[in-house]
Amino acid sequence: MQKLATFKQFTTITPTAPIIREQHGFRAKCLQRLVRLGMPVPKTVALSFETVHGIAAGRMPDKARILSAFGDAPLVSVRSSAEDPDWGGPSAVLNIGMNDDRFAAMAAEIGEAAASALYLRFIQTYAGQVAHLDDALFDAAAPPTRVVVETALAAFEAETEAPFPQDPAAQLGGVLRSMAKAWESTTARLLRQARGAPLEAGLGLVVQQMALGVGPDESGAGVMQAVDPLTGKAQITGRYLSQSQGRDALGGREGAIYLTRDRRGPSLEDLAPQVFDQLVGFGDTCRAHLKQEMQIEFTIHAGALAIIDARPVLLSARAAVEVAVALAEDGIISRDHALMRVAPRALHEVLHPQVDPRAPRQVMARGIAASPGAASGKLVFSSTTAQAMAAQDEACILVKRETTPEDVRGMHAARGILTEKGGVTSHAAVIARGLGVPCVVGAIGIRIDRRTKTLRTQDGRLLREGDQITVDGSTGEVLDGAVPMLEPALDHAFETFLHWADEVRDIGVRANADTPEDAAIAVRFHADGIGLCRTEHMFFAEDRLTAMRELIFADLPEDRADALSQLLPMQRADFIQIFRIMADRPVCIRLFDPPLHEFLPHDRQGAIELAEALDRPLSEVQRRIDALTEFNPMLGMRGVRLGISVPEIYDMQARAIFEAAVAVSRESGGADGLAPVVPEIMIPLVSAVREVELVKTRIQTIAATVATEQEQDLAYRLGVMVETPRAALRAGEIAHHCEFMSFGTNDLTQMTYGLSRDDAGRFMGAYVRQGVFSEDPFHVLDADGVGELLIIGAERGRKARPDVTLSICGEHGGNSESIAFCRAAGFDYVSCSPYRVPLARLAAAQLALKSAHSG
Amino acid sequence: MQKLATFKQFTTITPTAPIIREQHGFRAKCLQRLVRLGMPVPKTVALSFETVHGIAAGRMPDKARILSAFGDAPLVSVRSSAEDPDWGGPSAVLNIGMNDDRFAAMAAEIGEAAASALYLRFIQTYAGQVAHLDDALFDAAAPPTRVVVETALAAFEAETEAPFPQDPAAQLGGVLRSMAKAWESTTARLLRQARGAPLEAGLGLVVQQMALGVGPDESGAGVMQAVDPLTGKAQITGRYLSQSQGRDALGGREGAIYLTRDRRGPSLEDLAPQVFDQLVGFGDTCRAHLKQEMQIEFTIHAGALAIIDARPVLLSARAAVEVAVALAEDGIISRDHALMRVAPRALHEVLHPQVDPRAPRQVMARGIAASPGAASGKLVFSSTTAQAMAAQDEACILVKRETTPEDVRGMHAARGILTEKGGVTSHAAVIARGLGVPCVVGAIGIRIDRRTKTLRTQDGRLLREGDQITVDGSTGEVLDGAVPMLEPALDHAFETFLHWADEVRDIGVRANADTPEDAAIAVRFHADGIGLCRTEHMFFAEDRLTAMRELIFADLPEDRADALSQLLPMQRADFIQIFRIMADRPVCIRLFDPPLHEFLPHDRQGAIELAEALDRPLSEVQRRIDALTEFNPMLGMRGVRLGISVPEIYDMQARAIFEAAVAVSRESGGADGLAPVVPEIMIPLVSAVREVELVKTRIQTIAATVATEQEQDLAYRLGVMVETPRAALRAGEIAHHCEFMSFGTNDLTQMTYGLSRDDAGRFMGAYVRQGVFSEDPFHVLDADGVGELLIIGAERGRKARPDVTLSICGEHGGNSESIAFCRAAGFDYVSCSPYRVPLARLAAAQLALKSAHSG
Repeated sequence: MQKLATFKQFTTITPTAPIIREQHGFRAKCLQRLVRLGMPVPKTVALSFETVHGIAAGRMPDKARILSAFGDAPLVSVRSSAEDPDWGGPSAVLNIGMNDDRFAAMAAEIGEAAASALYLRFIQTYAGQVAHLDDALFDAAAPPTRVVVETALAAFEAETEAPFPQDPAAQLGGVLRSMAKAWESTTARLLRQARGAPLEAGLGLVVQQMALGVGPDESGAGVMQAVDPLTGKAQITGRYLSQSQGRDALGGREGAIYLTRDRRGPSLEDLAPQVFDQLVGFGDTCRAHLKQEMQIEFTIHAGALAIIDARPVLLSARAAVEVAVALAEDGIISRDHALMRVAPRALHEVLHPQVDPRAPRQVMARGIAASPGAASGKLVFSSTTAQAMAAQDEACILVKRETTPEDVRGMHAARGILTEKGGVTSHAAVIARGLGVPCVVGAIGIRIDRRTKTLRTQDGRLLREGDQITVDGSTGEVLDGAVPMLEPALDHAFETFLHWADEVRDIGVRANADTPEDAAIAVRFHADGIGLCRTEHMFFAEDRLTAMRELIFADLPEDRADALSQLLPMQRADFIQIFRIMADRPVCIRLFDPPLHEFLPHDRQGAIELAEALDRPLSEVQRRIDALTEFNPMLGMRGVRLGISVPEIYDMQARAIFEAAVAVSRESGGADGLAPVVPEIMIPLVSAVREVELVKTRIQTIAATVATEQEQDLAYRLGVMVETPRAALRAGEIAHHCEFMSFGTNDLTQMTYGLSRDDAGRFMGAYVRQGVFSEDPFHVLDADGVGELLIIGAERGRKARPDVTLSICGEHGGNSESIAFCRAAGFDYVSCSPYRVPLARLAAAQLALKSAHSG
Repeated sequence: MQKLATFKQFTTITPTAPIIREQHGFRAKCLQRLVRLGMPVPKTVALSFETVHGIAAGRMPDKARILSAFGDAPLVSVRSSAEDPDWGGPSAVLNIGMNDDRFAAMAAEIGEAAASALYLRFIQTYAGQVAHLDDALFDAAAPPTRVVVETALAAFEAETEAPFPQDPAAQLGGVLRSMAKAWESTTARLLRQARGAPLEAGLGLVVQQMALGVGPDESGAGVMQAVDPLTGKAQITGRYLSQSQGRDALGGREGAIYLTRDRRGPSLEDLAPQVFDQLVGFGDTCRAHLKQEMQIEFTIHAGALAIIDARPVLLSARAAVEVAVALAEDGIISRDHALMRVAPRALHEVLHPQVDPRAPRQVMARGIAASPGAASGKLVFSSTTAQAMAAQDEACILVKRETTPEDVRGMHAARGILTEKGGVTSHAAVIARGLGVPCVVGAIGIRIDRRTKTLRTQDGRLLREGDQITVDGSTGEVLDGAVPMLEPALDHAFETFLHWADEVRDIGVRANADTPEDAAIAVRFHADGIGLCRTEHMFFAEDRLTAMRELIFADLPEDRADALSQLLPMQRADFIQIFRIMADRPVCIRLFDPPLHEFLPHDRQGAIELAEALDRPLSEVQRRIDALTEFNPMLGMRGVRLGISVPEIYDMQARAIFEAAVAVSRESGGADGLAPVVPEIMIPLVSAVREVELVKTRIQTIAATVATEQEQDLAYRLGVMVETPRAALRAGEIAHHCEFMSFGTNDLTQMTYGLSRDDAGRFMGAYVRQGVFSEDPFHVLDADGVGELLIIGAERGRKARPDVTLSICGEHGGNSESIAFCRAAGFDYVSCSPYRVPLARLAAAQLALKSAHSG
């Protein structure tokens, strides 16, 4: 039989007492640290999770023994102490121990008003939290007098049919029981689980002797912190309110004053300079020893400072970066620790404009937060209008039912995007993230009428073109009017922080970048290179689209050659620009991928215009459009299938790539020897090894031709994009023919699940809510299914060719979970939207630190 | 150093000579067998593959020695002898050895005309095959006289600038060299490879002493076989022509007579009754000892019979079945051997009407042979017209650009189907095969105009509604007018043959059957059960479609319940009929699978009619249609995703299934105890185990409810359709929740390749021709990619649940290759279109026999 551990019902907090965060909670442990630092903390007793759990189950500890720790007739407070301060807990209860006798004694000592205030506060808290009475029973506005106290006591008795408890032990028992039970309520459990608390998270409680804050001389209470929680810059902020308790000074209370000497009015520094200095000193001590910025709750009683509590300051993401860097630069924490202080996802807030959290929000519609950041602008209903607005430097928000590749330029021109349809990986969402444009998709309930250029919200409001709106792509909200913003903070701290991350991480991070603009962002965010340069977006520009359409309608090889010869110099110019910007960083270019019908008009009007432009009969144009229409374009004639069926397209692209490589190599150095720009060419949508062989042969020929023409040896790397399950399964034989394999997890997820990302939006929300899928697999890499294919592909590829470069590109590339997965699977790099590069760099660094720590 | 085998340049065919088919060819071996059977075969010498290969390379054997085997001044023939008679070979050369001296001698002996005929034949053959001269040099119609011979010799000399060779050895050398070289030409190689010959297939030659067939008394030549090659029934057929050689009697030559006594005119039986009897006797001997029906080439010289050659009769498929059964029933071959005699694919010809091969064919267009058999009828351009025609018992052929689920009833009504778009697994093709309706898809070059109801062929002909056409789904041809047909032959031999197959096979064969009609065909073809009963086709009937649309437009749960309560009795009635027809054979019912938009109209007119029918505004109807439209319906909101999002549909279906099972169980036996009908319920498009759990729970509830209501215990089996790569990968956890897993190889192939079967048609042909894919993976199961997923799924499923039933359903189910794959992977059964069931039964039997043989 096991010996039962001695059950210690409570522990007085002393520098050496066995207070353990995992048993007594964060607040208890923090208070012990303050005690160790010699701060004037009133006497405190900690009740462990076990004790509190016992209380909820009916096993009340010896209340009188607890009270006896505080000497004769004490007043005490009870505060919650969960293991993590973010998990919440029931509100504090102050002034336990007040009763008629104590009231009479204190009235004599500190005056009737002050004593009344103390008693009234307790009665009201007790009535609400313990007896669960209605707040309205008490007149909150009435000044504290004996009469008001008596009225309150009478109201309590009338409602509960019992007098207000006078025995301090009984009072304490009631408070402890109510707090213990509140923690175990379903609502509280769900709330804390949403914040990441485990199912079995416990609650500790701390019972502390009251520092009254009410009474003679200078008495009062306040809150102080040494940083601006929005910026993270060093600045003492907080409030103090004379003759108050707890956190009364906050929330705009009349009479609350600033702490530092200030033009805005009286301050604690003026009122009690010595106390102020002492407080600032305590702040410094906290920062140095607790190794983070703390919010300190203090009380002044009769001129003497008491430190009641301290908890970490709730920092914005940019402040978290600033603070972490400052702490590390001050030698308080190591750089590695600093890196662990910021969640990668939080960097979104730093990278994009945010709606100022202090601004009022008028939410008109809600959708899916598809691309972070916020933007205000005038409502427009077409890409053309968006481009026209942008040409006049007018900020606009593009609103469409859904976007198509033809909208890319309009999306580029808009400050923000809003769509009625789609999910997190719809066209609009993917492109917007790539462009770094805030985007809300799947805004259920809005109705867009392109004809009348109006948008009707679910509550019946009608917006017209030109009306100001704001989209918040971080929350998925659409707000009325223009709203104040916080601008991105790509400052010294941000750069330093990510530079530290780069020193630590052990997996590459590249950017998906299709245009010179994207490439510039990739460089600005220190991507290791471009992991995915999609070439098709280059064809949607107006002049190119025309050539592209001529290509599609060319019946004769000569006509086709003609169209391609128009496209060649444009493509070459694109690549020259990108190679220049990327300098010595690698650029992986994916050959043309989309189905041809994406380049044809989608409506009758477009077909008519095209027929005119091409000088062909409408019926013929319509016929060609029909012939190219596909039932399931995702699974249709695209990628390498098109490359093999119309090989001239890849020929032209390969030539453009090689000629650009030679040109940029010559700019950057001698024309002799090997061209230093070594482009990477990637074949999309491979499903059979023979596809690779066929394309490879043609590309080799083009490379040899260009080398001869240009009298310049050139090197390049050829690889495939693994997007079909079959390519992953056949990676062994495919790897023999390629130097790199990049897993396109978007398409691979679509095919592994048999799930179109464009169509999944309609039920994905419900599916995740019901737990059918634990996560949206387009958002978080499905480790079990898609992940197994990644591992199969990586293993087989590596086995066949040990030096093959492995990577993933696509939306998952920037996620911590996916990066962890790829790192474990031995991938060389991940590639993601340029705006996700900083996140990925940080996530990769954290993973390296974690595995060094656990290894 | 290896000792070189003694190189024997030729071998005289005697009963004991070392003649080996793999070295000397089929004809040489067959002639040896005839010799062993004591038949009067003229002396014959065999040249091995090695010798002939040597001749082509310039190593001529000793011609004089060969000729010396035939005594003094012989005339000889040379015939080709490939290993398989189907692989072809150069034509025979007769009368080698004829020269001026021999001509003079023979003219004296058998008359000048006969001698001239022999010499002329040789000169002309030699000129064409050896000297490659133009046929037109010689007057083929001129009667054989000395003058004509001399003219021919002069023409030869004029053309070649050398006299016609007089040395028999030189003549033989020329013939041997030209035949050896002809075999190695590219054209000949491609032709025989198309017939299945290996790259290195060799050619043997046989040199045979001529039995002249020209000369005194009754002399002549003929061909005989003892069966009708179209029906396989015993019947002596053939022709005989006096004063002729080789196969001159065939091909409608004037003077050729029948063999048997006949009303049609003179016969060999009349002309030479003893020779006839002897010939018939030889025929019987051949059949008994060579164990197959042979075509015998014979010559009569001066009243004496010589057997020149024998080769297997080219039988039609139905004849092959008839002959195999007859040989087995006569005890000549075993049943197992009989089963190996017919290629499973050949059964298509037996099961479906065929264009009579003797009829002239006017091909108007060519497409892909998508569903075997042929049919004639009047051209119609819409399903409605097809149904109207069928109601009046008028045969019609439905022509559409492509078909949609709405066309199924029209396709049922039509005798044949022709589409402009699509591939072997397009909607039209799949449905047509299921219905057993002949179908040609992807008829490139035809232009259908629905509005004017006309069809224009590539060569500019214009056909109108009502014109007679014939579609041949076995060849992919579209013929003008109505063409004579051979009707299906599901006779005693066919039934016996497949009954033998069932006794041998060791893997189940079920049918995919959606309707009572399908089920009846499945029973007629002795399927072991229904492996896939798709329930959605049941909803396209007019009355049901209305209820289905009401369901889609229902905003309130009550309205939805209302629509479903209309559908319930119809579904129940469907299942009752199917259970009744299938009696004690298992029926596997797949729950509703397609996306809802398939049930909505596809054009504006349809939307208007629907708006009227539902009494709702057109804009609302159009809006709902738009909202349900998907980018990639294949990967959209269908299958279990719909089942979970709108659970009432599966609830209704489960109830219909259980109520039908109880009803039919009661008909067939006591109401006590367990209901004997045990339905199998299959969940489509699963990709996550939780989907199975959710549906399973609801189905369990419905089963319990129905059992209580009906006071009848009932059993059922629940399983999943494995169609997504993820379901195959997660088969281990999924198998815990289901009793069977059926691999839907159509969708699995689409998703593994990332290839839509509806869209692949545009490039699949080119892809297979270029060898990018070795076969169309929708046609032949891709063993490397899709196959690996099948094996992974099967292994993981079996490991988790050893008694799980494994099967495949879908188009691959009826293929020999797929059945072999499934058998090897330990699957329990395959399921295929009802019309493929006989093929699958035979293929399965052959596989069992082969593995017993090799095992």
